[in-house]
Amino acid sequence: MTGFHALIGVEEAVRRVLEFVPVKSLEVECVSLEDSVGRVCGVDIVSPADVPEFDRAAVDGYAVRSRDVSGASATNPVRLVVVGTSFPGDDPSLLPEVAENTCVEIMTGGPVPKGADAVVMAEHCVRVGGYIDVLKQVHPYQNISRRGEDYRVGEVVVRKGTKLRPWHVAALASLNVTKVPVFRKLRVGVMSTGSELVEPGTKPRPGQTLNSSKPMLKALLAEHGCEALDYGTIGDDFNLIVSRIREALTNVDMLIVTGGTSVGERDLVPEAVNAAGEPGIIFHGVRMRPGKPTGVGVVDGKPVIMVSGMPVAALIGFTVFVKPLIERFYGAVGEPPCKLRARLSRRVTNLVGYRSYMRVKVVYEDGEYIVHPLMLTGSGLLSTLTKANAILVIPEDVEGYDEGEEVEVELLEKPVRGGTEKWQSYTTGLSH
Amino acid sequence: MTGFHALIGVEEAVRRVLEFVPVKSLEVECVSLEDSVGRVCGVDIVSPADVPEFDRAAVDGYAVRSRDVSGASATNPVRLVVVGTSFPGDDPSLLPEVAENTCVEIMTGGPVPKGADAVVMAEHCVRVGGYIDVLKQVHPYQNISRRGEDYRVGEVVVRKGTKLRPWHVAALASLNVTKVPVFRKLRVGVMSTGSELVEPGTKPRPGQTLNSSKPMLKALLAEHGCEALDYGTIGDDFNLIVSRIREALTNVDMLIVTGGTSVGERDLVPEAVNAAGEPGIIFHGVRMRPGKPTGVGVVDGKPVIMVSGMPVAALIGFTVFVKPLIERFYGAVGEPPCKLRARLSRRVTNLVGYRSYMRVKVVYEDGEYIVHPLMLTGSGLLSTLTKANAILVIPEDVEGYDEGEEVEVELLEKPVRGGTEKWQSYTTGLSH
Repeated sequence: MTGFHALIGVEEAVRRVLEFVPVKSLEVECVSLEDSVGRVCGVDIVSPADVPEFDRAAVDGYAVRSRDVSGASATNPVRLVVVGTSFPGDDPSLLPEVAENTCVEIMTGGPVPKGADAVVMAEHCVRVGGYIDVLKQVHPYQNISRRGEDYRVGEVVVRKGTKLRPWHVAALASLNVTKVPVFRKLRVGVMSTGSELVEPGTKPRPGQTLNSSKPMLKALLAEHGCEALDYGTIGDDFNLIVSRIREALTNVDMLIVTGGTSVGERDLVPEAVNAAGEPGIIFHGVRMRPGKPTGVGVVDGKPVIMVSGMPVAALIGFTVFVKPLIERFYGAVGEPPCKLRARLSRRVTNLVGYRSYMRVKVVYEDGEYIVHPLMLTGSGLLSTLTKANAILVIPEDVEGYDEGEEVEVELLEKPVRGGTEKWQSYTTGLSH
Repeated sequence: MTGFHALIGVEEAVRRVLEFVPVKSLEVECVSLEDSVGRVCGVDIVSPADVPEFDRAAVDGYAVRSRDVSGASATNPVRLVVVGTSFPGDDPSLLPEVAENTCVEIMTGGPVPKGADAVVMAEHCVRVGGYIDVLKQVHPYQNISRRGEDYRVGEVVVRKGTKLRPWHVAALASLNVTKVPVFRKLRVGVMSTGSELVEPGTKPRPGQTLNSSKPMLKALLAEHGCEALDYGTIGDDFNLIVSRIREALTNVDMLIVTGGTSVGERDLVPEAVNAAGEPGIIFHGVRMRPGKPTGVGVVDGKPVIMVSGMPVAALIGFTVFVKPLIERFYGAVGEPPCKLRARLSRRVTNLVGYRSYMRVKVVYEDGEYIVHPLMLTGSGLLSTLTKANAILVIPEDVEGYDEGEEVEVELLEKPVRGGTEKWQSYTTGLSH
């Protein structure tokens, strides 16, 4: 019980992960378009053809030769003969050609007939039986979506490493890609140690604690596109921990171990990681709060991440070390964090030399956002997460922030709006 | 082909949705803890007991009576007899009582024995055989996580309407809740109309177009926690559209229809919605770009959302009208949008009276974020979405923004960083 031998800073810890954790590239598998959302694209996907494959009308109107209507205006209309109609889906080769002083009625998305080089909007024409009077001139290619305008043949449409979202699905559908090559899911094991822990669903004896960190970590892994494998909750038994670590590593790409990573007498995990294989621990103990006992090891070429058994510290350990490793395995960049600048309702302090991850609640009050730091006494306090809607990171060289100071926080959930009808907020932009 | 009868603004359109779309509350079903992530909590979940159920050590050290070590310091240490040890998981009733001038060695998470009211950190004690010398005083309850500190019995831990995230899973696990009451998934149908459309996986004839909007909308619905039901792609056949709408509405809570909603000759959907049932269309035609032909109807108490068949316009229609309706059905507030303020690389203009949703690319260049508007000619241009990483909303009363002006954009994906090692960005905060 003498404390960590050598605490290191967050930057140094990340540097060591970069240097010592080998990242092998994942195999590529094909999934249906429907199942591809949230997966990471495994190859550069190239357009096999021009999209669209032909010139199309971008508006409803009349396909014309732009030189025929040069100078047309309301006071000087140009009369054209309507020789046919183009609907979306019509075969371009079957449409009548637009010769001098003729036009073809055309609907949005309809193929532009041969001879025409522009579309006059319906609003700028007056239909008179088999003729139209054009009231406005158009320049060449006006109101036309041109062949290859979306994608040219051979162009990369979705890059390897892209996390696929609904609009990528639309792009792939437009290329007629129905089997999507994606990286196989990263397999990540989660095991918990601690003789005091019992699994949810069983009744704890006095003094025992329900294991809440393991289900949370499994949910986080699923959210980050990984397959989570459960290696159970085991007691503080050195040999059992070593053999379970070895067993897990035969099957997973990465292993997360919770608990047993502080410096008390029963904190056996770091020793067990060293015993499980070479090179073992690459660091143990980080100047961060919560999460000081976080550590990383490498066993037989695979990373083993040791996080606190306390749920809040486990969450921070996951975010700082596991999440970027997942993104490295996939060669991908994840979702952007949601950040907000707002003023602090009270002073917060930091232990200089440590990076603090403070749980805060952001509330919209009297026309501005206010950051309320939550009172807290321990890294086990789940209520600071379920009551918080944002995290304030205080860097190592900052002693704290004053009441009223503007800080940047990372949102976990939508800020609370005091008394405003929720719906209203949607009407001000794309969403709010 | 005469244009919309009466275009309305986005605010007015949303107001009509609020007024005319009935929202019935969804039934509650129970799912396993594992399957609860991403679902919406269906009841207020109340703590059945204090969490933690007993006072616990928040650090490794010695459980003491604070008055025994009052005034202790390095120059004036206080000696206590060590009468036992408390490990996490120990039954509090079996631990020795801490009497005057005694203490119990205690590990983080271990129950605080009867008689003790504080924990001295191990670093502030010197162990001498069966004694310790305490070098620092503690105040009552220092370094103790108190009974009920996380949640008091009867306290609401997760509110009805909360979209469950991994930390809620941890909180529910700590209450031993393994069957979670959630709202059943909202069932949303998607059908496409347009004789020119073919389903991905079939080879289009010349002039035909692959239906890319339907798979995108299904993916969006899945991302927003809904069950998407596919009602196919059908031609521009009025009677078929009416009967398919009626068929879908016997099974879904909401229906999205793509295409056939402009004002060309074959734009049959608004008429079909009116024919399908009462009251029919509540608006059709909105002053927004893209997405002008968007409309909403109500048939037999269920909303029917008509969006453009063009994928970009369909995405904006989804975000502005469908997403808030989903949140209303669940009584939930969704994820916060990710916003960023940055400078424009060139001037952008807006048609006053319309709300524009402009696709932009945000790039980190020379130490700051720059917003590059993408050139575009039509709402069908998927490339503006796969190349864009953000949306800039320009309100109705704004003519545009100048080059160099600071604007707020909503991020779709992480901004591109020119030449910076990706990993570096993670080291500056919680994530970046």
